[in-house]
Amino acid sequence: MITLSPIGVVESPLTDRKTAPKQGDEGAPEAVLVFTPEVRDGLRDFEVGAWLLVLTWLHRSNRDVLVVRPRSDRNRPQTGVFSTRSPDRPNPIGLHRVQVLAIDGLRIRVSGLEALDGTPIVDVKPVLDTDIER
Amino acid sequence: MITLSPIGVVESPLTDRKTAPKQGDEGAPEAVLVFTPEVRDGLRDFEVGAWLLVLTWLHRSNRDVLVVRPRSDRNRPQTGVFSTRSPDRPNPIGLHRVQVLAIDGLRIRVSGLEALDGTPIVDVKPVLDTDIER
Repeated sequence: MITLSPIGVVESPLTDRKTAPKQGDEGAPEAVLVFTPEVRDGLRDFEVGAWLLVLTWLHRSNRDVLVVRPRSDRNRPQTGVFSTRSPDRPNPIGLHRVQVLAIDGLRIRVSGLEALDGTPIVDVKPVLDTDIER
Repeated sequence: MITLSPIGVVESPLTDRKTAPKQGDEGAPEAVLVFTPEVRDGLRDFEVGAWLLVLTWLHRSNRDVLVVRPRSDRNRPQTGVFSTRSPDRPNPIGLHRVQVLAIDGLRIRVSGLEALDGTPIVDVKPVLDTDIER
């Protein structure tokens, strides 16, 4: 069995899954990544303006879902969940690309993040050039 | 506590962490994603040529690491692990961008993947335009 230990939590004005934007570029609000004191040493070297990949645990998701109907076209047949970004999936790990806006100790303010208030953070990685080139 | 259930496993010629490439663009070999029968329905709609993000559990990692010395410059001071892609980190989730080369039921052959043989797969997502634009 694989166990994840949250390294922090998302602080966001988003509290309702039904009204939350589905992707960070769809008007998601700024949010604060609030890290636990235990990982303080891992936070050094964050810089304002840097782009980060934030991995979250989408704790409100349904993990029994294998096929979904894409919201872009309700007439389309159901789609395998691994060809979608649906939060409902066997291991609901959220992947969010954000920009660092401000750093205050364990609190990192970031640009548009489509995760609900209280969502556990499980990892943060820098964006690499190889992530964005084809 | 958060628990992940593997949805498959990486089949790769890479067996030794010391000699494995660190990123997929550094000569990593083709690999096969071997999924469990339980998630078969989630695999439909994969297409040859598509780009996928594969999330793995880097099971050989040291989870107690918060600062690392970047391999690019051994003279630099230690760096907070969340500003690096080091596999040694509190929640060692690997993130790999690969292209689908062939599909055979539960076995999906993909381009350069820098994960060791036997690495558990925990999620697969499509690459979105918003992942690769700044």
